[in-house]
Amino acid sequence: MSERLVVIGGDAAGMSAASQARRRRDADDLVIDVFEMTQRVSYSACGEPYYVSGDVPRIEQLIARTPAQFAQQDISVHLGHEVTEIDIDDRTVTVRSDGESRSVPFDQLVYATGARPIRPPMEGIDLDGVFHVKTLDDAEAIRSAAESAKTAVIVGGGYIGLEMAEAFHVRGITTHLVTSGAVVMNRSLDEDLGAKITAGMRERGIEVYPGHRVKCLADKEGHVRGVEVGEAVLEADLVVLALGTRPVSELAAEAGIRIGPTGAVHVNNRQQTSVEGIWAAGDCAEALHRLTGRPANVHLGTVANKQGRVAGINIGGEYATFPGILGTAITKVLDIEIARTGLTQQEAEEADIDAVTATTESTTMAGYWPASADMTLKVTAERGTGRLLGAQIVGGGTAGKRIDTLATGIWNNMDGLTFSMMDLSYAPPFSGTWDPVLVAARRAYEKAV
Amino acid sequence: MSERLVVIGGDAAGMSAASQARRRRDADDLVIDVFEMTQRVSYSACGEPYYVSGDVPRIEQLIARTPAQFAQQDISVHLGHEVTEIDIDDRTVTVRSDGESRSVPFDQLVYATGARPIRPPMEGIDLDGVFHVKTLDDAEAIRSAAESAKTAVIVGGGYIGLEMAEAFHVRGITTHLVTSGAVVMNRSLDEDLGAKITAGMRERGIEVYPGHRVKCLADKEGHVRGVEVGEAVLEADLVVLALGTRPVSELAAEAGIRIGPTGAVHVNNRQQTSVEGIWAAGDCAEALHRLTGRPANVHLGTVANKQGRVAGINIGGEYATFPGILGTAITKVLDIEIARTGLTQQEAEEADIDAVTATTESTTMAGYWPASADMTLKVTAERGTGRLLGAQIVGGGTAGKRIDTLATGIWNNMDGLTFSMMDLSYAPPFSGTWDPVLVAARRAYEKAV
Repeated sequence: MSERLVVIGGDAAGMSAASQARRRRDADDLVIDVFEMTQRVSYSACGEPYYVSGDVPRIEQLIARTPAQFAQQDISVHLGHEVTEIDIDDRTVTVRSDGESRSVPFDQLVYATGARPIRPPMEGIDLDGVFHVKTLDDAEAIRSAAESAKTAVIVGGGYIGLEMAEAFHVRGITTHLVTSGAVVMNRSLDEDLGAKITAGMRERGIEVYPGHRVKCLADKEGHVRGVEVGEAVLEADLVVLALGTRPVSELAAEAGIRIGPTGAVHVNNRQQTSVEGIWAAGDCAEALHRLTGRPANVHLGTVANKQGRVAGINIGGEYATFPGILGTAITKVLDIEIARTGLTQQEAEEADIDAVTATTESTTMAGYWPASADMTLKVTAERGTGRLLGAQIVGGGTAGKRIDTLATGIWNNMDGLTFSMMDLSYAPPFSGTWDPVLVAARRAYEKAV
Repeated sequence: MSERLVVIGGDAAGMSAASQARRRRDADDLVIDVFEMTQRVSYSACGEPYYVSGDVPRIEQLIARTPAQFAQQDISVHLGHEVTEIDIDDRTVTVRSDGESRSVPFDQLVYATGARPIRPPMEGIDLDGVFHVKTLDDAEAIRSAAESAKTAVIVGGGYIGLEMAEAFHVRGITTHLVTSGAVVMNRSLDEDLGAKITAGMRERGIEVYPGHRVKCLADKEGHVRGVEVGEAVLEADLVVLALGTRPVSELAAEAGIRIGPTGAVHVNNRQQTSVEGIWAAGDCAEALHRLTGRPANVHLGTVANKQGRVAGINIGGEYATFPGILGTAITKVLDIEIARTGLTQQEAEEADIDAVTATTESTTMAGYWPASADMTLKVTAERGTGRLLGAQIVGGGTAGKRIDTLATGIWNNMDGLTFSMMDLSYAPPFSGTWDPVLVAARRAYEKAV
């Protein structure tokens, strides 16, 4: 008799799990049903700012695979179906669609509900013209609003905030960004780098208002018309709230599945939850941080894809493990590339690791190469040993992806001196003779040891 | 009493050694004399093609530091001074300048003579208008000739050949490249990738003539007027020979310093030669290949800088080692980026390593990102274990520098599966969700295990 796999949530983690399980077990052996609340599955949320900007013209470009494509693989995708309850004793989920609920049995369950935007207690948050960025529907609504907007305010100075600021700016909209932090990106980078990005955004015409919480103001028809920032009022036809996201773990918690200290679902390295046969993956699940040894919860497509893959391979009858994260991330705002991996100085301190951080000013290519741009690297190393713990990059074109080389060194527990002598590539259109990552790692080592 | 350090050759390796020794020992303790045959020291040979193209307008931009700057550091640079003999018993070198020779004593000696272009037995090689690419004088002579040239022929399909072809092409010169190989880059990459580059060059207007050896033809004044390629004659106002380089090791060999199997000077990992107090570094010295365990001899600024640094630190009284090479290199021809590290399939076979190679077709950025370009990755892994052995990349903008991430994985003896689960960065303007290096490493692993 065949087993039944139910997947709750049809984006990166859920669909990766379904696909990997299917590759290893055919439809006679495993029936797969995916329940997705929205009307779309398997899309690139990370691409949404670039749909809003117009860099990506059509919303379909952000969809990796359609329900019809999954159907060919014998994966049944049920759109507009919300799972409202998990019964771990009966091994059933309750699914609601078109106002009706039914019970669906499962043998294996993948919990991949993702994350939802934080909605702070902010006055005016429900006005017309105030948006969150999460689903493709959100992206379509924002682009539609942007087509007639002249002024926009972004609330939030993290990844999504910066990406949306770029999107509006390139559309020619007067764009203001308000953040409660002293600088943008203050949860991801050390403050000096955040200050550099803040200054760079201002130079490029995006005004930044740090250290502010906001209140949205309405015109008389209930549409947003501006944002109150301290004493000032910023005019806004359009407001985007980008204040971070939270794992959707309530459904799991109510079912008695263990929730970890981050508020996300606890999993082991095979993506098993505390309940046999129930797996979790993606934004709603925890991930081991390789440097702190503690559970973390990051909301990134990279992690969701990998965790979903691991769950699916295991459900498929093979053995796979998720090796944990370093907290690697990258973005850009206009021509400023921003990347990080591992721990910042502050994060190391919070994890009780004695660390030092060295800053290296360099250039993306040979100094004399015409397209060469400034780049700042911060590298964090363990005091005493010089072991690499983290890196942060802010710079011009090609700066950002260098974070992967540093991430690979950190992954392998390299110390900064050993790292600095590696045989990396060089030609004038690509770097100086000593690639800046080598120099930056050596400086961190010298400071640490 | 102070010691005397003599450095033979004032480019990357020699000047790095001198600088690092000086940082650790002051002029009362160590007198440093550098003897350089040419009229310049410390320049970027790798930048010469970009001076010829005009990307780098002034030759001075390629000079990292001048003799005057070294003098401030109490390093005496003697230009136009050729060392003609080393006496390892008397501990002296014979130095010739302005037709006169004198004997100079040393306690420590750094042999950093570099490499010289191969001059094959080719008819017409000494004609006017036929150039090699080595010194800044060469670069100046070529650019001067290029200013009036309408047609150019490059002989040689390696790094310098491609870079010079780009340089002439961007100057608007009709450019032909002739190589004895079946495709360009056939000593650095597998043939399928060489074929891809060859096709790409042709599409971009640089004609390539593979499988040919050439003969330069003269006009009646002894200036080159063309190149005979099989039955055809290619018109050429200007011919550049880029047939590789050989280590300048004769002087060492004559002195009784051990030469290794590559023809370069044998060194240990502190850059010591077989003679106490005599060090060698750079193009003229061997380097341990970390994967084959055999001595290699590569002519790259990266290795020269690192080896010179190691020699200088050791002469300075500290302890440093050169950890060996992977054979990492990068270049580009127009918008085609080319990079490699470790072993190709053929190199693995030559080293008696049982290897497999998987090819992955991908894109530099998210598939839907407008600037995304095609990229081909080949990854070589050890059969049975899946240990990463090598990688080759050909692709559009931002493809090439990904080689550093793979090189770091290979350096750390990662297998392709472990590599594929690393936490690397992703955002649509930078890569797909799974960076192509992760996918390529996994494919190689799956093929190997």
